Parts: sequence; C-alpha cells; structure tokens
Amino acid sequence: MSTSENKAPIFPKGDKASADYFTGTVWIRLLLPNDDIMHTQIGNVVFEPGARNNWHTHPGGQILIATDGVGYYQEKGKPIQVLHKGDVVRILPDVVHWHGASPDSEFTHIAINSNTQNGVVTWLDRVTDEEYLSLGK
Amino acid sequence: MSTSENKAPIFPKGDKASADYFTGTVWIRLLLPNDDIMHTQIGNVVFEPGARNNWHTHPGGQILIATDGVGYYQEKGKPIQVLHKGDVVRILPDVVHWHGASPDSEFTHIAINSNTQNGVVTWLDRVTDEEYLSLGK
Repeated sequence: MSTSENKAPIFPKGDKASADYFTGTVWIRLLLPNDDIMHTQIGNVVFEPGARNNWHTHPGGQILIATDGVGYYQEKGKPIQVLHKGDVVRILPDVVHWHGASPDSEFTHIAINSNTQNGVVTWLDRVTDEEYLSLGK
Repeated sequence: MSTSENKAPIFPKGDKASADYFTGTVWIRLLLPNDDIMHTQIGNVVFEPGARNNWHTHPGGQILIATDGVGYYQEKGKPIQVLHKGDVVRILPDVVHWHGASPDSEFTHIAINSNTQNGVVTWLDRVTDEEYLSLGK
C-alpha cells in the first residue's frame, strides 16, 4: 500500500500579495484565519523566483515549513540561510527578518503565526537587491 | 520557471507512535518541540491504512493540515469526515476527537498544537473497530 499518487501541489495558489510589503510576485492562500480562541493564523505562500517579503517582525513569533522549491531566510545581522523542502524555521517574537524565493527557483512555505493575541506582523523596510543578493558575499 | 521536480514526501517518516495511544502503525516526526516562548508544538504524522489515534482532547486546540492520502476525522457525537490533501481542520480546545487513515489509504498530516501553555494533549479511550467503521452507517 503506497501513498497517494496525487503529485499536484498541496494547495492551489491564492491571491497576489500586496506590492506594499512584497517585492516580485507572491501568492498567499489563507489556511486558518486568526481568531481569539486558537491565537494562530496559517497561510500558504508561493514566491516566484527572486520574490520576497519586506523586513518584518511577528510579535507572537512564526514558524515556516518549506514544502517546495528553494528559498531564502535571513535574520537582521546574520547571513542568508538557504531553505529546502522539509526545512522548518522557528522565528522568535520581534526578530527582524525576511523570507522569499531564491533567484532561480520558485519557493513554497506554510507560515504559522503563533500567539496572535500579541499581534500578527509589523512591516518594515523593503529588502534591497543588494541585501537579497548578499549570499556568499 | 516551474516548481521543484522533487516529488518525494516532504518529511521522512519519524518514530513509531506508542501503542498506548494509537491503533495500527503510525510514525511521528517532531518538527517543532514545544517551548515556553512559541507555545506551539508541530509534528508530521503518517498513518498506515486503518491506523488511528485514541479519542483525545487538546487543552489549547489543534490544527491539522492534510498533505497526502485519504484520512478520517471525527468529533464525538458527529459523523466521520473524510480528509484529502489540502484539507485543514480546526479543532477547538477540549473537543473530544480522533483522526487517522482511511481503511484503504495511507494518510499524512501536519499537526499543529496551539496555546500549549494550556497543555498539549489528554488521551482517552481507544477508537473501537465499530466506531472506526461507522462511516455512512
């Protein structure tokens, strides 16, 4: 008995994300709306190659689960980390960071915002091309 | 530019789950250990066909994200729901429920335990074969 032969993506692409907070084309599909009982918001995010979000923080923290493609994750003052399918990132409350696709691959992750009674997200500056292309420099 | 051609499961199977709380063979891979900052515990669970957990509750609630195969989910006093890849289940705190594979298909889900400052899980009775086979009866 084997696993399903259904090899399509787990989720269809959602709505295009706002250009105010994202560079390049990004699709977000809300999987769990925030509420006052679960204190959790979950979304599936697909980044086209080169696309990323702005620098930002989560007052209640966030967990990323990489499910397809190759992505980037960076915390302020640290080097870019390359993410592959199956990688899990634990982002502590108020840590300034960004995430997105690598330049040559689409990237998909599930984003889990925890402790949303403390807030969901605080957006900061855009990630410049110089910052985005800093890997290995 | 397309998504990754890597069609393997997102996560390798983890450790076999305890027969005290599960019927049939189940593998659990911990993705995020619980801690006092994130208040969140995440695991990937693979159920062989026919396998399921006992009736149980989560004091802080739980979200299931179905990622492969065909599964079952049931809340006490309600009919069994059939789960497919991409389905998301919001389980409120203290709701008595169980989940597992359908009889003829393996099933994989990500399980996200929220608000773990209130507790993670309280195990109850085993799901009997009569209960497990009650779909459509």
